Order: sequence, then structure tokens, then C-alpha cells
Amino acid sequence: MADQTELHQKNLEKIFSPQSVAIIGANKKKGTVPFDILHGILMGEFNGLILPVSPGKTHIAGIKAYKYVTDIEDPVDLGVIVFPSTVAHMALEQCGQKGIRSVIIISAGFREVGEKGVTREQQLLDIARKYDISFIGPNCLGVINTDPKVRLNASFARKMPAAGHIGFLSQSGALCTAVLDYAEAKGIGFSKFVSFGNKADITEVDLLYYLMRDEQTNVILLYLEEVSDGRALMEAARDVIRQSGKPVLAIKSGRTREGAAAAASHTGSLAGSDEICEAAFQQAGIIRCGNIEEMFHIATALSYMPVPNSNRVAIITNAGGPGVLATDAAIKEGLELAAFSEETARKLKKALPNTANINNPVDLIGDATADRYESAMEAVFQDENVGGVFVILTPQSMTDIDAIARQVAQAAKQYDKPVYASFMGEASVASGIRILQENQIPHYSLPESMSHVFAVAHRFGRLLERKKENAVEPVVPGKTKGGAILQQAMGEGKSYLQEYEAVQLLKEYGFPVWEGQIAVSADDAGHLARKVGFPAALKIQSEDILHKVDVGGVQLGVQTEEEARSAYDAIISSVRSHVPQAAIQGVYITRQIPRGEEVILGMKRDPSFGPVILFGLGGTFVEVFRDIQFRVAPLSRTEALEMVQQTKAYKLLAGTRGRPPKDLEGIVDALQRLSQLALGHPEIRELDINPLIVLDEGKGCFVADVKVFLAEPSSTPEHHEFYI
Amino acid sequence: MADQTELHQKNLEKIFSPQSVAIIGANKKKGTVPFDILHGILMGEFNGLILPVSPGKTHIAGIKAYKYVTDIEDPVDLGVIVFPSTVAHMALEQCGQKGIRSVIIISAGFREVGEKGVTREQQLLDIARKYDISFIGPNCLGVINTDPKVRLNASFARKMPAAGHIGFLSQSGALCTAVLDYAEAKGIGFSKFVSFGNKADITEVDLLYYLMRDEQTNVILLYLEEVSDGRALMEAARDVIRQSGKPVLAIKSGRTREGAAAAASHTGSLAGSDEICEAAFQQAGIIRCGNIEEMFHIATALSYMPVPNSNRVAIITNAGGPGVLATDAAIKEGLELAAFSEETARKLKKALPNTANINNPVDLIGDATADRYESAMEAVFQDENVGGVFVILTPQSMTDIDAIARQVAQAAKQYDKPVYASFMGEASVASGIRILQENQIPHYSLPESMSHVFAVAHRFGRLLERKKENAVEPVVPGKTKGGAILQQAMGEGKSYLQEYEAVQLLKEYGFPVWEGQIAVSADDAGHLARKVGFPAALKIQSEDILHKVDVGGVQLGVQTEEEARSAYDAIISSVRSHVPQAAIQGVYITRQIPRGEEVILGMKRDPSFGPVILFGLGGTFVEVFRDIQFRVAPLSRTEALEMVQQTKAYKLLAGTRGRPPKDLEGIVDALQRLSQLALGHPEIRELDINPLIVLDEGKGCFVADVKVFLAEPSSTPEHHEFYI
Repeated sequence: MADQTELHQKNLEKIFSPQSVAIIGANKKKGTVPFDILHGILMGEFNGLILPVSPGKTHIAGIKAYKYVTDIEDPVDLGVIVFPSTVAHMALEQCGQKGIRSVIIISAGFREVGEKGVTREQQLLDIARKYDISFIGPNCLGVINTDPKVRLNASFARKMPAAGHIGFLSQSGALCTAVLDYAEAKGIGFSKFVSFGNKADITEVDLLYYLMRDEQTNVILLYLEEVSDGRALMEAARDVIRQSGKPVLAIKSGRTREGAAAAASHTGSLAGSDEICEAAFQQAGIIRCGNIEEMFHIATALSYMPVPNSNRVAIITNAGGPGVLATDAAIKEGLELAAFSEETARKLKKALPNTANINNPVDLIGDATADRYESAMEAVFQDENVGGVFVILTPQSMTDIDAIARQVAQAAKQYDKPVYASFMGEASVASGIRILQENQIPHYSLPESMSHVFAVAHRFGRLLERKKENAVEPVVPGKTKGGAILQQAMGEGKSYLQEYEAVQLLKEYGFPVWEGQIAVSADDAGHLARKVGFPAALKIQSEDILHKVDVGGVQLGVQTEEEARSAYDAIISSVRSHVPQAAIQGVYITRQIPRGEEVILGMKRDPSFGPVILFGLGGTFVEVFRDIQFRVAPLSRTEALEMVQQTKAYKLLAGTRGRPPKDLEGIVDALQRLSQLALGHPEIRELDINPLIVLDEGKGCFVADVKVFLAEPSSTPEHHEFYI
Repeated sequence: MADQTELHQKNLEKIFSPQSVAIIGANKKKGTVPFDILHGILMGEFNGLILPVSPGKTHIAGIKAYKYVTDIEDPVDLGVIVFPSTVAHMALEQCGQKGIRSVIIISAGFREVGEKGVTREQQLLDIARKYDISFIGPNCLGVINTDPKVRLNASFARKMPAAGHIGFLSQSGALCTAVLDYAEAKGIGFSKFVSFGNKADITEVDLLYYLMRDEQTNVILLYLEEVSDGRALMEAARDVIRQSGKPVLAIKSGRTREGAAAAASHTGSLAGSDEICEAAFQQAGIIRCGNIEEMFHIATALSYMPVPNSNRVAIITNAGGPGVLATDAAIKEGLELAAFSEETARKLKKALPNTANINNPVDLIGDATADRYESAMEAVFQDENVGGVFVILTPQSMTDIDAIARQVAQAAKQYDKPVYASFMGEASVASGIRILQENQIPHYSLPESMSHVFAVAHRFGRLLERKKENAVEPVVPGKTKGGAILQQAMGEGKSYLQEYEAVQLLKEYGFPVWEGQIAVSADDAGHLARKVGFPAALKIQSEDILHKVDVGGVQLGVQTEEEARSAYDAIISSVRSHVPQAAIQGVYITRQIPRGEEVILGMKRDPSFGPVILFGLGGTFVEVFRDIQFRVAPLSRTEALEMVQQTKAYKLLAGTRGRPPKDLEGIVDALQRLSQLALGHPEIRELDINPLIVLDEGKGCFVADVKVFLAEPSSTPEHHEFYI
């Protein structure tokens, strides 16, 4: 697999930067895909040799055509297959024979059309493996490389986009046409632009690694309808961010059940759980965007401007109202208004008229011209308290819009801090916005967008710092024993562990458990209760009983030997009457865990992302409000802490209104141990610690109940999602 | 006051539709406000007589000028004052002498510049009252009426906007310039456009009533930085919606503390609590918008299209990816994808190619041309299950963008259902979007916006229906007694009521209270406890003690006479040791209320909106999560129920996961009684019922504790916000 990855990276070089391209299946019919592809490469002014292959033509668009790709005498770096799906495999076979290793398969009619297509797609893969070919597609729009040394538009996009530093990767071809059209209007350029379609061979993961090394690219965008290998995607994004510092932005559609159904019907993909996807993206540092506009809002800011080193912004405006709206928006996004230094205040006072407001937001008043903007920007940019500058303009009668746009561009060049602009209105500010775009100043028509993007950019900056600091943060505190218990249970064909077995397993992994023992008579119960200590808890143990409370199988708060004996008898008699046929192993006796905050820890396996850890506060928060957090294992200490902090009920653990804070360290430790256990033992299908009792800070926490479900069960009493 | 309101309505006629306008303070200097105003009226092709008044000029812009307004021989309908603030009052005085009753004061330099300005503003008001003048401003951009019969641009906006049916009212002048510029680019027209500035005389409330009657206006937009009379605004909005069915949209800035501070620094206004404003707008049916773009998104949909009669949409697209994004967005906004009838499915199957998806979202596939859009629209528009249609287009190589735009316009004319469009991209779809705009088809570049607007429009439609049904919904179930208790307490100079007084007051208003009696000895306590019934609750009564629990003044769960006697002694001895100087009236004994869900009801008075009612679920929900709802009194039954349902913790009351539902009717009744009590007794400054114990459905609820604070207290033990 590592070899395959290396091969793809090598072959991708010639997919993006070939010296010669064969268009296999080219024809002369305008308005068809084969024609558009050839036309695109020609019009894009490709810096290499173009070789049409067409069984019936001797020349196309004035260029000599070949019957078969194998007829070409010159070496061919890249094959672009535009034949119908029914014959595409033959073209690929001939590419192999000709020694072409880099291929783009534009043709549709594969996995997306059902069973027959799946077979055809497999055929392509088999041929690719035989010849060490790597291919993009099938069912895609193609590939664009704007690098002036190459200029390859091997796609049926209407025209070549401008050169820039944004790399765009998309699973949907149709969306690409809208994106190119949007980008053209906004003056946004691309380094590489890839529609990867069915990603039968080369996937978004391969492309991420390629763009990581691509010098033209400084921001990577991804549109996905389906995550096939979630763990690989996370690893790739982490590598990209850590090794290159390039941000990765992604849209993952199909968020709702209905959206996922719509996606399935048009790509044949299977959507996973969106909340797990959300968590995984966050962990990997992928910036998830809700739509194309948000994606380019963020991408332009990160591509054009330095990352802000603080969340304190200065707002400069020529109108009070919009200044208020921008302030509201900034605060809502978690930004702060920078408090200016005395020197800045002095400078502003000197440069601005008396009626101006020299506090933040700085109001230059309606008659402000470019020089007033210049003085204000100079003052605030030089202020150490300012992390970034928002320049707002409304078109009033004295406003010299274009000159102010040029002043903003000038300031951006001069200072190493981000500046974003919002020229409000549309018709009369259009030329000013164009000047901003030409000078790569991020522009937003709404203060909300401006603040949102700044907040995202600031968080990304902090992530980069953290990645540097914590590059080697130890992930696993737990041990790796416990196999024996699981092996025995699996060997016996069990589908879940008995409580005493589960407790033993957790103990071996260093979880805070209070071990107990199994009593088989009332007297036995009395003795054992004294041994474990009072108050004691008694619970039925039976292979046939999963939910103990429901059958009267639990007695808590037992204070004396005498009570323990009665409790034993009460349990046995209740269970006998509820489940007469149950085989009873005995009654498990532990010391009862003191009262504390109850939290839930869980683990299940996601088909795309593997073992996933769940955390939530017990009771109504999880049951009624579904206030839960997911993370993909393994969990770093920081990730484990964050997942606790990101529940809404975290306030209750942190200590508010006179409540003492709870033992967060204990929860974090347990979460990391659970993550380790999940990774070490794929034979565990699902695990629920419910509840973990958390005491006050420094006093630890204790597992009060645990259920462990095993893989490939021979007899499952019930199917379980997370036990909440 | 009613007279004043009538006068304003009468005078507004000539502010908007004068036959002659005097520009008082006009001059020839380009780039100044006085010149711009005259220029604006001239260029706007005003259909009446223009009369410049300028002390030093005999003619301006070729038009005869007068030294004083009193020199004009012709009758003058409207005076527009552009003189500096220091002499504006003289101009207004002369308007009065000339018999002008309708005035616009553009001049700045009043309340917004501090104390001197406040005095000058009062001077204007005094003159206006003397002569029965009504004026807009000061410190405003002016007034525009696009009606072809009038064509008045009495503003310094750069140019006259297109005629349309949207009325726009703004407190900020600078924002107006941005709005006009935005609207021009989007092809949006206005009926009336008003910048009302400091609203010293005519306010947004007067303007709302004017636009309610204005035949050119079908949607009213409002930008506010300050709500001075919240109750009047609510009443006006309710009248507008009920009497004319016109939607009222509002932006209220200064949402955050920092934003409010910024607003205060530039308008001198005092911002009230934003969450109360939010609640009040919702109650009045005002659609609150976050920004200008959202406001026009909604305004165009409501102005151009019928209100949807269901939330079930049909999505038609030529690309799968955007169809998925649109589906996600629709579901998130609470819309549903319409399930097509069999007939629709048959029609779609017949009209579309095999590869198309004939389910919702309907995917016409990338090569779709206008005829395919036409067939699909025809089929889904005729389907009774469809409440509205979203048409999505991506610019692919075969896409005939303009023709499809015309098809959409055609369909919109033919069917009485809303259709919104999203032509994705920007550059190459621009001409298509222009066709949509010309034909008044709401267009959104993002599926999110489209879905959000549809959801808002649908909710507005339901509001209109409800207004019709519940026009006479009785607001008040409570009685109006209780005055005696309050009068006596006020007379004694008390700042709050003793519990037994408060309970008596609530009882008279029909609240579910369990009355008790005051014991003055241990034996007395024993007898009374038997009388009220066990278990009993005992609580200290003292003018000097507000928080009874803190001083050991409460004993609960008392089961026998003997226990009651001990409890009495325990309370007295604890209170004596904690507060030796306290004057003790006795110990209040009631039967103890059974366990149930604890909720909090509260009332306080807002300076702008008057008595406001609060509701929240007790415990952590209110304390930690601030999960509370506000409503302005009076509360209709529907409003009271909604405020309970809109808390996040409502699920706990509604009954989930096997819990029985709680007695909602009891809560709603108590909320309405509280609202009635607040309106009937302004001498109550604040009232907290904490908790109200709610039993299972049908079993009622009971006031467990109540605090009543009185107005103008002679001795307040502590200042209280809501007691949470």
C-alpha cells in the first residue's frame, strides 16, 4: 500500500505537468465532451505536445490524429481518456502497452450507474495495477494546472482560471463549473484544480499529499460527498498542516439524513454519521465550511494575508451604523475590539477632525477621504494591541472609493498584519472592490463574514502553534494487557462480558475501578460485603441478563452484614420471578462509589473512521439534549480535554456559582485509556462506561458500571447503538 | 397624544407628496449638503414647484431664490431645512409663520453632539408644537418618494432609486447610502425611502402607520439603533400586520454590550436589553434580520412572491452536488422535501431522460436545457404536495442560462406558488440573474439563503393566518383585586412584601397557592401544622430577613405536631443567633407542596418595553445555562405557551423517554395571571415565583415561594435583577 502511495505521487507529477498529452477518443463534434477537452487544452495554451487519438480521423482541429495510442512514435506523459465507458478499459490497456503511467479518465458510466458500472470500474483498476498506472476519475471534469510553465487545462471547464495559490479538489464535477464561474467574478486564482469524480484509483488523500509538496499552492480546498477512508484523510490533513503549514478547508455535503439520501442517489456513495465526520475534521485540523461562499471567504483570507497573531481587531469606518453592526458581529464571533495605546489615541486625535470617534470602532465620519483612512490605518497598524484591521466604507457623496481601496492595498503591503475590507453597497463600490481584489485584499460585503473569517484564521494560527509545540504529545497513557479476558470470552462464544470480567479488563488498563467479588449465598454476601467495605453495592451476574435494574437485580447503599444478606436474598428472589429461566452465576459485591457528578464514556466503531470515543454528562444532558462529543481514537491529552470542554454541560464540571470544580484530570485520563483499549483490541465492538462517577478536583473518579460488547457475537441479546 | 398622532399622519401626506417644496438654506456650492439636496430634487424630476430659500442669492441653479420662506407668495407644502443647527430653529419658526406644517430637517448638530444639541432639539419641538408642524429629523439624509405622480428625492442620496413596493425606514443615514447602492445592483425598487435621524418629532411608529396605508408599499423595512417606545412600536407593528397583512422587517443593531457602547457613542442613544427586544419583536410579528443582505433577501421574496402555504419544497437542479447542498440547507431550516404525487412522477419520467433523478431533488443532469427545466417546473408546480419551488442552475457547457431564467419567470407568472432561484457561480450566470431580477424572481447565490428565506416566509404566512383566527384571543384570565395589600404595604413604606402578604396577593389573582398561617409560639405551630396538614413547611417571617434559608429560617418535611413544635424552636433560635436585631413577626406555616418539576416565573419592568415576563426551568437550566424566555406583557395564551415551549428544557416538561408530561396548562395559566398582575399594579417593581412546582399533567402546579418587590422603596435590602 505504501508502494501504491509512492507510485501515485510519482505518476501525479506527469498528470499535472506532462510534456505530452494524448487525448484518447477525441472528436470534431462541437458541444461534446471529447471535443471540449481537446479544445480546452488548445485554448489553454498548453506548453507541450498535444496528440489526439481517434480511430476514424487523420487530423482533428488541424492536429495530426492517431488511430491508436500505441501508434504514437513520441513518448506520451499523460493519457486523457474520453471514450465511452464501454470501451474505456481498452484505451487504458493500450496506454499501459504504450508505457503511459499517468492517466485521467473523464468518461462517465461507472460506479455511479450501478452494478455494471462497478464491474467496469474494477476492470480499470485491474489494468492500472498490471501496468503501474495511476489514474484520476472516472466520471470527472478533469484536471487544470495554471502554472505558466505548464498551462494544462485537461478538463471540460469552459475556460482556464487565473493563476493563484489555491488548490481545489472536488468530488462533484458540476460544482466545479459553478466554482470556476464564481472565482472568475471575484478575481480568485488557482494553482491546481482537480475534479476527481469516482476516485477509483487516485483519491483525495493522494491529491492532498501532492498539493502539500506543490510550491504553487498555499491553501487546499476539498469538496467531498463521501469519505471512504476517514483515518487516511485525517492523517493526510494532519501531515499537510504540520509539514507545510497549509490550511485544508473542506465541504462535506450530505449533512442531514435527507441530504445524505440525495447524495447516495446521485453518486452511489454511503454517507457516514455526520457528527463523527465533524469531530474527525476538527481533530485533524480540517476547517469545515458550510458552503462555497464561506469556503472562498476563508481561502482568500488565508491565501492573501498573514494569520492573525491575536483576536483583537481594530475597526475603521466612515459611518457609525455599520461600525455598530461590525462590532456586534466581531463580539459574536469571539473577537475583541483592541484597546488602543495612548500613542495611537494621540496619533488619531491629531490626524482626525474633532467630530471623529478615535476609540475603537474608529469613526472617520461621512466626509472622510483617502488621507483620513491612510492616517487611521497607519496609527492602528502600528499599535501592538491590534491583531488585525477591518476597513469599512459606505459610499457617501465625498467618498473617494477607488483611492481608499488603493490606500488599503498600500497599507497591506507595508505591515505584517491581516487587513480585511468591507465596501458596503454594490453598484458604486464595484470599482473599489475590483482594486481590492487585484491587490489580494480579502473583501466581504457583510461585517459578519469578515468577523467569521478572522475568527477562523485566528484559530488556524493557534492550531499551527500548537502543532509545533505538541508535535510529540504522548497519545497513550494506558497499558496494553487485558487480552486474556477477551480471548477467553470470545472463545466461549460470548457476545458481552460479565461485569466482573469487564471490571477486570478495565483494571488491567489502569481505569479507576473498585474491584469486587462474587457471592453465591446470603452468608457469603455478608462476609464479602464486610471485606469490600460499607456502603456496599450488590448486582446480579447472569449471562442471560443485560439490564440488571429492570429485573430487580441491583441493591445499593447496603450498610451492614445483615443488610447484605437480606439484599442477596431479595435480588435472587426478584430475578427468579422476573426471569425464571436465567442461569445465575452469583451476585457481584463492591464497595459503593460515593456520590459525584455522573458522566458517560463510550466507544463504538465507525465504518469510515474506526474506533470513536464518546463523552457526555449523565442524566438529562445526554438523554434529553444529546449533549455529547465524539472523537476518533487515539486521543491526545489536549483532544480528550477539549471534548469534555466542548459539551454544553461542561460548566457543571468546571465549577460555577460556588460549586467546586470536578476532577477533570481523572476524566481525561479515563478517556485516553478508553481510546488505547479500543485501538489495542478490535475484538471489542462497543464499550459503555455509564456512569463514571466524578468527584471533586483532586479526588479522582470511579467506574460505577461498564458494559463490554464483543465483535462477531454468536448471541446478542439486543442490538446496541451508544447506550444513551 | 392621539391628536399628535393624527396630526403627524396628516402632515406626513405632504412630506411624501407635496406640490411645492421650499429648500431652506440652499446654496450653490457643489459637494455641500444644501447643494446636494436641491440638486437631488431637480435631478429626481420632481413633479411640483421647487422654491430655494437663501439669504444671499437671488437665484440658484437657474431657479428664483427667496431671502426668507415668508417671502414666498405661493403656498408651500413642504419645507426642507438645510441651514446649520445654530439657525435651524429660526427657519422652522418662519415655516410656522408661512403656514407650512410639513418639514424635513436635514441639519446635524443636535442630540448626537451632547447637551447643547439636546437644548436645540427641544427648541425645534417647542416651535413645532406651537404651529402644529410635524417634522422628520434632524440629523438625517432625507426622504424619497418614487411614486411617478410625485418623484420626490428630498435627500442627499446620490441618486433616486427605482420605483418598487418596498418601504425603507432608517435611523442611520450612512447606512442608507450603502443600502441604495446595494439595491441598485440587485435591481430592487422602493416605494418610500426615509432616513429619520434623531426622530425628535416623527418617529418610526408614525412612519409605520403611514406605510400601512400607503398603496405603493407591500413590505416595510426598518433599521433601528434605539427603540425609544417599545410598546408603541409593538402595537404599530401588530396593527400593520393585522390590518394590512404587510410584513415588517427590522434590523436592531447594538446586540452585544460592545455594539451597544459603539451605538451610544455615535447616536447618544441608550440601548436596552437585547434579549427583551428580541422577544418583543417576535411577539409583535416583526421579522428581525441580522444584516442588510438577509433583510433584502427576505424583503424581495415577500414583495415579489406569494407567501408559501406549506413548508414542502420541490428542488429542481441540473447538478447533483448543489442538489445535495440545497437539501441539507432546507432540512436544517425546518423545511421538508415534498413527496411527489404519482402523477407528477409519471410526468417527470415522461419528460426527462433515463439518467435524470425524478425524485425530489429532481436532477435534470448536466446537459439540461430550458425545455427540460420547463417540463420539470410544470410538473412540480401542479403537484398539490408542493408548497414552493427552488430552481438551481450551474453553468455547464450545454446550459442555456438566459433561456432558463426566462422559463422560471414564465412559470412564476403562471402559478400562484413561490419560486426562488439559485444560479450558482457569478460571471457567466450574471445575465441570467439580471433576467430573474427584472422579472422579480427572488435570487440567492447560496442554497442556505434560499431555504432560510422560504422558512421565514412560511412562518410569516402562518402568523397571518393566526392573526386572523385569534384576532380576539382573550388576553387576561386573572382577576384585578389585590390592591389593598399593596396599598397598605406601600403606605407603611415597605420595599417588599412578607411571604404571607405575597401569598395573599397571589391568591386574590387566582394563582394556585397553599395558604398558611402565622404561628407565634411552638404550641401555636403544632396546632397550625395539624390544621394545614402534614407534611408541613415552616418559614420565618421578618421585615429584616429576605433570604430565609441563609439564616436557618426554614424547616421542611415536618410530619407531626411534635416535630412542628421543635421546628419552630429551632427556627427562632437559629434566626436569633444569626440576626440578633431582627424583628420577628412569627413563623409562617403551610402544607408542604409535593415534589414536581421546578420552574421559575418572574416579572420586571423594562424602560422601553414596560412589564416583561420571564420563564425558565429551575436548577441548572436557569442558573448555569441561562435557558430563559422573555415576553412583554400582556401575554396571550398562545404567547405564554410558546415561551414555555421555546426553552430548551421544554423537553423535560413535555415528557420524553417514558417521563409523564407535566401540567403545561397550569404554567400557562400562571404566566397569564402574572402578566395581568404586572399590568394592573405598576406599584410592583419586580416579582419572582421561584419555584413554581409543576405536577404531572392534569394535577396542577403550586407556588412554593414568591418574592414581591415594591416600587420607590424607602429601604431596599438589596438591589435585584431577576432572582436567578
